[in-house]
Amino acid sequence: MDKEIFTDSTDVICAIATAPGVGGIAVARVSGNEAFAVCSRIWHGKDIGQMPSHTAHFGTIRSNNDEIIDEVVLTVFHGPNSFTGENTVEIAMHGSRWIQRKIIDLLIENGARMALPGEFTRRAFKNGKMDLSEAEAVADLIASSSRAAHRVALSQMRGHYSKKINELRDKMIELASLLELELDFSEEDVEFASRQKLLDLAKENASVLRKLASGFKTGKAIKDGIPVAIIGHTNVGKSSLMNALMGDDRAIVSDIHGTTRDIVEDTAEIGDYLIRFKDTAGLRETDDPIENMGIDRSRNAASNATVVLYVYDSSTPTSIDEITSELEGIEPQSIIFVENKCDLPTANENLKNIINNTFLGSVHIEVSARREQNLEELKKLIGRQIEKINADINEDSVMVTNARHAQAMIAAADNLDTVAEGITTLLPPDLIAQDLREAIYNLSSITGAITTPQILQSIFSSFCIGK
Amino acid sequence: MDKEIFTDSTDVICAIATAPGVGGIAVARVSGNEAFAVCSRIWHGKDIGQMPSHTAHFGTIRSNNDEIIDEVVLTVFHGPNSFTGENTVEIAMHGSRWIQRKIIDLLIENGARMALPGEFTRRAFKNGKMDLSEAEAVADLIASSSRAAHRVALSQMRGHYSKKINELRDKMIELASLLELELDFSEEDVEFASRQKLLDLAKENASVLRKLASGFKTGKAIKDGIPVAIIGHTNVGKSSLMNALMGDDRAIVSDIHGTTRDIVEDTAEIGDYLIRFKDTAGLRETDDPIENMGIDRSRNAASNATVVLYVYDSSTPTSIDEITSELEGIEPQSIIFVENKCDLPTANENLKNIINNTFLGSVHIEVSARREQNLEELKKLIGRQIEKINADINEDSVMVTNARHAQAMIAAADNLDTVAEGITTLLPPDLIAQDLREAIYNLSSITGAITTPQILQSIFSSFCIGK
Repeated sequence: MDKEIFTDSTDVICAIATAPGVGGIAVARVSGNEAFAVCSRIWHGKDIGQMPSHTAHFGTIRSNNDEIIDEVVLTVFHGPNSFTGENTVEIAMHGSRWIQRKIIDLLIENGARMALPGEFTRRAFKNGKMDLSEAEAVADLIASSSRAAHRVALSQMRGHYSKKINELRDKMIELASLLELELDFSEEDVEFASRQKLLDLAKENASVLRKLASGFKTGKAIKDGIPVAIIGHTNVGKSSLMNALMGDDRAIVSDIHGTTRDIVEDTAEIGDYLIRFKDTAGLRETDDPIENMGIDRSRNAASNATVVLYVYDSSTPTSIDEITSELEGIEPQSIIFVENKCDLPTANENLKNIINNTFLGSVHIEVSARREQNLEELKKLIGRQIEKINADINEDSVMVTNARHAQAMIAAADNLDTVAEGITTLLPPDLIAQDLREAIYNLSSITGAITTPQILQSIFSSFCIGK
Repeated sequence: MDKEIFTDSTDVICAIATAPGVGGIAVARVSGNEAFAVCSRIWHGKDIGQMPSHTAHFGTIRSNNDEIIDEVVLTVFHGPNSFTGENTVEIAMHGSRWIQRKIIDLLIENGARMALPGEFTRRAFKNGKMDLSEAEAVADLIASSSRAAHRVALSQMRGHYSKKINELRDKMIELASLLELELDFSEEDVEFASRQKLLDLAKENASVLRKLASGFKTGKAIKDGIPVAIIGHTNVGKSSLMNALMGDDRAIVSDIHGTTRDIVEDTAEIGDYLIRFKDTAGLRETDDPIENMGIDRSRNAASNATVVLYVYDSSTPTSIDEITSELEGIEPQSIIFVENKCDLPTANENLKNIINNTFLGSVHIEVSARREQNLEELKKLIGRQIEKINADINEDSVMVTNARHAQAMIAAADNLDTVAEGITTLLPPDLIAQDLREAIYNLSSITGAITTPQILQSIFSSFCIGK
């Protein structure tokens, strides 16, 4: 069976392409050489074979014993001018669960089969409608839940990313060809490929690729949510602050129970970014070994966070020494000091100034989580801090959001290091060419110019069905 | 503001018409006189104004500062040949939450407003694309979760129902006109409308309407789930049976906590029907007043159920006298005796025969909920019992599923009774005509030939947005 998955066949596949559940309408997508023939068996209306491409038609879907299942609008797309590049039919039906299931059942009874996750996009890739990194971007685009993630995915889907990779690759291919030409003339001992130029290129490309791959952490954060840790003593109102920050955007908040038992995660969209808030265990001196483990985790969350919200209670005396020891090792630029319970009389008259002088580059804000005072300002502040840190992110920037791509880039950079070493140690051209080919291979795997069935399967199986 | 709701204006409305959430694609629907102009402001591609009706086009949606939001397929429908009867644009986009929200935001920024629930269908009604009962059927169709509910809703949407109502109404209008004609000739004391014919018609129509309205209980059950009560002693395995019956179809099971604390409800699709299982408190002799209240509720659930599953434990001695007293007042035809724990040695050797002789018309089955033995057979049995009871339901039958319709029918029948009384007591034609008009008015409110803004608002506000 395993071999049967993604056989790159052109049989007719079908799936509901819209979100699962009940809606006003739902859309079934049917694709394959014989898509028109399959749909004709359940469609009553104008002859599908006679419909011009990109036209929509009203009619009914009927069961095999001629019972009317629904009144639908059917749209035809003639290959290659369709998403998959094949003949495609889209059926817009009333969005009841029963109708959706019944129409898919009918399509299957009449010669289609259920599409595997990502199979429509895989066919688009196979038919040259998009390259592999563009296809991967389709999945990211669908999953994107913030403006920044959307922007990165869309730019990748529209090929900006592939263009950058291909530029790097093309230069390497050119030099590899020259090296291989030398092999044909090996008896004459000529050098078509300038060794210095090759060395420069190998070093330069290796460095570019390593830099791109290092952006993966940022790219991943944009995709999955930028980590913001909420730390501070016990009972200063960390959890209330977290809830208050979530409250306004309850609709786009999701609960993720972290692997670390004591850290509760929640995501919310702030400005252009998806933020992954981590509410941590309260910090305090304790001899309890279990509690100390929780505190270690809090510190760990703080060091891995892009922004740290250090919360303290305005109404309870707090010493700068405690704060300093608790924030040891955290970049001041990433800290926002949140003076909570600002509606109560303060017990920390001068602390704000001391903090500002101690943590240069940090910012400070007074809020009341309970009374929801100044929370919008806090959100803006978080957004601004992230903008500052991610200043280099713009529409045309190439942002690596995919672990597979980052790995391939690092592998290619390693190959280029070997190439550089080979040149300086005066290795024969055929050995250098071999390492260069290896680097090209690794880069090519990103856009899919070279792929293996294993890579394809792992990529497309992460898609939702119907795309 | 209240007055602003549903002003029957033709301004441009928009909404996501597909199910909420993330999907491969999502579809925004935009309708109104100026729909093309609004969409043109965010669309980059072929000129929308030049597109022939019912054609689909690839292009991009851009924000006001020309940032690309998504690559989409846009389909235009020229009024009156659209669902609403107005100019309509459907935008099929990638189904991320962010893109869906952004494109709706852009449409609103550029002159559309968010559609109210049901507003697209309301416009279809207003523009004569469907009558009121057909429009109501659209909402039922979308919500339908079983074949039987779907069939009733589709038949209503396609106008079978309206046809029946209009037939009744037309006969009454004819007679009312004749009665009113008499008024013009009142000094001459003629009778254009035969009093006998009028009397017959009033009596006949009143009886037809009452019969239709009485089908509402069945119709409602088909729509919301046919009640099946599971009753029996404590510890005979009622809850295990319920869970086992749900298990196979977990995907289409929903939890409904009943208003009665002690009855747990769950729905599952069996055959063509949506079944609403009610797991009840175990029956036993007790002095505990609270427990007795629970038992009363169980009995009550049994008397209101279409099918009663009486569960007993094969391995525990059970007497026919107990069973008989517990099933007092329940129609034997509606009872399925379920002998549970049939994998254990039986302690009720001859009970099955005694039951069959005592409850003529009931059926009996042996199952093991724990070992999932014979459960499919039990489901088939439930389906068959329901088929038997609902033998008169077929595709063309007119099934009242709507409380508003049932009320209007009963009101019209009452009016017709008054008409009949007026005729026998020789009331003057103008008074009889008045009652007849009232009956016609009530019938007309079903299909919307006569409506009030209040009726319209309460109907369409129950729709999902985007339809």
